[in-house]
Amino acid sequence: MDTHIVKAFGTEAPTEDLKPLSIERREVTALDVEIDILYCGVCHSDLHTARNEWRGTIYPNVPGHEIVGRISKIGTGVTKFKVGDLAAVGCMVDSCRECEQCKKGSEQYCEKGNVQTYNGYEKYLNKQTFGGYSERIVVDEDFVLRVPDNLNLAATAPLLCAGVTTWSPLKHWNVGPGMKVGIVGIGGLGHMGVKLAKAMGAHVVVITTSPSKVDDAQRLGADEVILSTSEEQMKANANTLHFVLDCVSAQHDVNAYLSLLKVDGTLALVGAPEHPLPIAAFSLIPTRRNFAGSTIGSIAETQEMLDFCGVHNIVSDIELIKMQDINTAYDRLLKGDVKYRFVIDMVSLKN
Amino acid sequence: MDTHIVKAFGTEAPTEDLKPLSIERREVTALDVEIDILYCGVCHSDLHTARNEWRGTIYPNVPGHEIVGRISKIGTGVTKFKVGDLAAVGCMVDSCRECEQCKKGSEQYCEKGNVQTYNGYEKYLNKQTFGGYSERIVVDEDFVLRVPDNLNLAATAPLLCAGVTTWSPLKHWNVGPGMKVGIVGIGGLGHMGVKLAKAMGAHVVVITTSPSKVDDAQRLGADEVILSTSEEQMKANANTLHFVLDCVSAQHDVNAYLSLLKVDGTLALVGAPEHPLPIAAFSLIPTRRNFAGSTIGSIAETQEMLDFCGVHNIVSDIELIKMQDINTAYDRLLKGDVKYRFVIDMVSLKN
Repeated sequence: MDTHIVKAFGTEAPTEDLKPLSIERREVTALDVEIDILYCGVCHSDLHTARNEWRGTIYPNVPGHEIVGRISKIGTGVTKFKVGDLAAVGCMVDSCRECEQCKKGSEQYCEKGNVQTYNGYEKYLNKQTFGGYSERIVVDEDFVLRVPDNLNLAATAPLLCAGVTTWSPLKHWNVGPGMKVGIVGIGGLGHMGVKLAKAMGAHVVVITTSPSKVDDAQRLGADEVILSTSEEQMKANANTLHFVLDCVSAQHDVNAYLSLLKVDGTLALVGAPEHPLPIAAFSLIPTRRNFAGSTIGSIAETQEMLDFCGVHNIVSDIELIKMQDINTAYDRLLKGDVKYRFVIDMVSLKN
Repeated sequence: MDTHIVKAFGTEAPTEDLKPLSIERREVTALDVEIDILYCGVCHSDLHTARNEWRGTIYPNVPGHEIVGRISKIGTGVTKFKVGDLAAVGCMVDSCRECEQCKKGSEQYCEKGNVQTYNGYEKYLNKQTFGGYSERIVVDEDFVLRVPDNLNLAATAPLLCAGVTTWSPLKHWNVGPGMKVGIVGIGGLGHMGVKLAKAMGAHVVVITTSPSKVDDAQRLGADEVILSTSEEQMKANANTLHFVLDCVSAQHDVNAYLSLLKVDGTLALVGAPEHPLPIAAFSLIPTRRNFAGSTIGSIAETQEMLDFCGVHNIVSDIELIKMQDINTAYDRLLKGDVKYRFVIDMVSLKN
């Protein structure tokens, strides 16, 4: 298989900073497109993987799964894209395409496991996949998304993970007009959850521990804000929400948020706290509530979300950084010091 | 309000045995029926309430919410029953009838709280309700069920709580042909879950810690039995079930049972362990699983279940006891020494 070398930024060990690396990319096969990466969002998963916090990281590791750019080359069989098109890649670059889930277009739940954009398995080169902290990426066109041309491109990058990870559960649990929807955890994911749920027509209720986030929640589109530290406010809002999107990845008391749900309501967890969360039977049984989880979204959902964002002019709130600033950005990410997503201007890697 | 005195069995304090009591029943109002109680099932909730283990018990307490008998009197406005009809009463005897849940026929989820058959609020007499460990009960006809006449009447009693508590979630989550359904915890509730799920057309998989229950599970109708103590069997069955009904009321590792669910599967808890159950984010997120709870069932569901049991000739496996044996029965219940439900022959109270 023909390959070529591209510049990237990654790490060779869990305890090392990210630094310039050279990596191999395959030449486009018949159904591949090559994307010249313009912007790449910085997801907390990037940091977890770079530092082997979820175990199983294969080094060297090149993170990045919120990728937008322009098509620079296409395979002979490619029909959906042409050179020069804007394009995007999210958390997956392939799946088995044969299982029940793939067949019904839920590749994110592929029974054999989808192929992650980084630290996945690159079958052509028999090695790990490398992510978007790089000059270019080569991906099967079926896993490449079209990008609306009216959106700020840098601020579009986080839609590829933070956007679809909140979009998918909002759609799956039928969020729309007439529904009161709670969003817990206003960070990279949660701030997208607020914007999307609002644009979908729901009455959006932000639930936060921080009085300092009230103004921002309203600016993002929240109709109401509940301070979860106020027992009075939590009690007054018990049994009022149809759905709660829980974007908190630290340990937290889910029972408190479950208490806000109406009969048959669902709380969907998209953050992934490290330790098990204690759930009282009484939080679920008397009102038939559901505690669920959800991960990323399918390719069809991702395209639908991007198109929706184009129509509603929705992007992420971002702070643009240079590739060389990634280690400082990781430090700030750990402190929650970002509103609400770092995005790397990939021009900085080329220079 | 006219009242009369009936014989009952109950307790005057959490630490006292149950003993003969005299209690007041209202005379039938226009829409009431009076039922001469023939059999009453013994539910673990009876014991919890008699002993104030859930707090809030008002004494004297007369338990019993699996009631079958014959109509002995009807109010002037009663249209659904006539004197001499078989009739049954379950866990509720009234609800607000005005809230969103009542209006859609989900009285068990009444937003103001349904009126429990015992230890609820008897609005006519401004005191606590008394349950089925008594000669007669007076109930609004809307909360009285018709009983198929082809079933063993004593063995029908447990359908009123154990039956509908398993029926309701099986129906709510659309259990039927083509579905693999797991039942955890083969006791009063679980053994009904197996019989009902099987009759609904599902492929029934019993999951048990006890090799001694394998034969019985198969006799009840299980197509397969998984020993949850076998890591090998649990792994081999990972991601295979569409739905799990969890009838365990002791502390247990729900994550193990969640791992058996396919993508989008639901585990519904109907047992109520005392302490919170730790749920790993990883048990839910990667396959969008749901951990839910469910309680009893609506009046319409209870009738539907009774009619279904009439058609499919389904009753509970019971051990018939005398009213005077109730304290010994409670001791045995605590040891799990019953297959699978005690039912009181109420003739014993009258003599």
